[in-house]
Amino acid sequence: MPHYVVGHKIPDSDSICSAIALSYLKTTLGEETVPARLGELSPETLFILDKFGFEQPELKTSYAGESLYIVDHSERTQGPDDIDEATILGIIDHHKLGDITTSTPLECWIRPVGCTNTIIKMMYDFHNVEIPKNIAGAMMCAILSDTVIFKSPTCTTADIKCVEALAEIAGIDDAEALGMEMFKVKSAVEGTPVRDLVLRDFKDFDMNGNLVGIGQLEVIDLAIFDDIKADLAADIAKLKAEGNRHSVLLLLTDIMKEGSEMLVVSDNADLTEKAYGKATVDGKVWLDGVLSRKKQVVPPLQESFA
Amino acid sequence: MPHYVVGHKIPDSDSICSAIALSYLKTTLGEETVPARLGELSPETLFILDKFGFEQPELKTSYAGESLYIVDHSERTQGPDDIDEATILGIIDHHKLGDITTSTPLECWIRPVGCTNTIIKMMYDFHNVEIPKNIAGAMMCAILSDTVIFKSPTCTTADIKCVEALAEIAGIDDAEALGMEMFKVKSAVEGTPVRDLVLRDFKDFDMNGNLVGIGQLEVIDLAIFDDIKADLAADIAKLKAEGNRHSVLLLLTDIMKEGSEMLVVSDNADLTEKAYGKATVDGKVWLDGVLSRKKQVVPPLQESFA
Repeated sequence: MPHYVVGHKIPDSDSICSAIALSYLKTTLGEETVPARLGELSPETLFILDKFGFEQPELKTSYAGESLYIVDHSERTQGPDDIDEATILGIIDHHKLGDITTSTPLECWIRPVGCTNTIIKMMYDFHNVEIPKNIAGAMMCAILSDTVIFKSPTCTTADIKCVEALAEIAGIDDAEALGMEMFKVKSAVEGTPVRDLVLRDFKDFDMNGNLVGIGQLEVIDLAIFDDIKADLAADIAKLKAEGNRHSVLLLLTDIMKEGSEMLVVSDNADLTEKAYGKATVDGKVWLDGVLSRKKQVVPPLQESFA
Repeated sequence: MPHYVVGHKIPDSDSICSAIALSYLKTTLGEETVPARLGELSPETLFILDKFGFEQPELKTSYAGESLYIVDHSERTQGPDDIDEATILGIIDHHKLGDITTSTPLECWIRPVGCTNTIIKMMYDFHNVEIPKNIAGAMMCAILSDTVIFKSPTCTTADIKCVEALAEIAGIDDAEALGMEMFKVKSAVEGTPVRDLVLRDFKDFDMNGNLVGIGQLEVIDLAIFDDIKADLAADIAKLKAEGNRHSVLLLLTDIMKEGSEMLVVSDNADLTEKAYGKATVDGKVWLDGVLSRKKQVVPPLQESFA
């Protein structure tokens, strides 16, 4: 029975590309391992898979009785629902340490860098395994996505160096140009149902007993939301009620202006005032310089709930 | 303000030597870091510090407002009581993943190997930092202690290779002979108060809401307990009542016969029957081949509580 590698619910490019990259590494080291996913892929991720010739990983949501590696998170709310009935062999992640626990020793590679794939590159180097060209390309794109082409405050020197090394392996001359091409694909919202947009990159967090959902859409120009912003606001209000959530936040991130408009529905009227020092007006607040959910949005919010 | 490195409560040689080794590495990398401890040291650890010329790390139990690295555990019950008010920069460990969480990204090096110091050696190699002779000696002794001179089922090839490499750096010809010398020091119980023996290597675990304390004494001949076994049994019963624990277990491990006698007080009369398939008779049970609390005692017990 093969082992699995799976990322978080509502998979992003890092979750998918790191599952592909880690399963190849483990298999090469003699441990048959296959990548899997917990949900549908975003246009950005489909672009990457198509570009480098990968099939979509298997859609697999139940892991009872299986052995698996968790990538790109360590939170119970973001992993498979039946994770307690699985054996966790390892966790590769770059977020805060979540509430997943195990009953046996395991392998954790967790680093405060911009992308899980940067850590997986360290694992390849540690084991002295050569990265195939197409896997290097996919890993590189995941890093460009997670670091918003190096603009995010989560980006570290290790991520930049890693992209350089992977670009060389993949034979890509201009990594940043490919990054922009990828963000253009990511920016296309026309014709997509509103709910699909809200859930495209959506994560639930347990904040001191309160369920808080935070979505993010990164685009190269916020004007593309002008016609649908009211619908997005209405939909996150629905999502809050459906999931019995305390709050739902949707970050509309302008990667060129380097800031985010946050759409807010919450049981606390002063949520953003308390967490970010800026009041929500008409269900919206502009957060200048905010590009990273992980580093700039979640920690202050978590503290405001403490 | 320096950062700290601290291991678990009732520190063992791995907790202390890994705190010393990691703080030297971090300081060398430009981050001023000092080792600390949460309690008194065992005769074995004092022997190691004396042998390689180290002072005892600072006794420090409160970390509110401090930044620290956690070594040799990831359990809330085993860490500083006010850990929620501290910033955890990283965790280096070789146990199951515990319930410590963080609100910001961190550095975790967790591997299923026999000793934290084996992982710290990997960190020195990753950063290409030379290990000083005396630190190499202390790290080596910690690995010999945790792996019971390679006899424990937790011992991996990585641990054995690491001891070889550290022995060479430290200029020690016969690592195993030094290990036996260390275990002779560890076996000396005469003149030590019974409570001190029970707590010498004692850890509390949260097992599905039940507090379970498990102590271990590793000796080269179980006969040394003949005169005090009744006192030890009486004392763990007291400890159970004092701490409102569901169970207290004390492993008397014979490292030459390679097995453990377990002294048991528990709210469940069939605790060992259920977890290890062997009934407790007169508060005792012999577990053949059991040397490792982490790998052979805790996981089956945890499952029996699930």
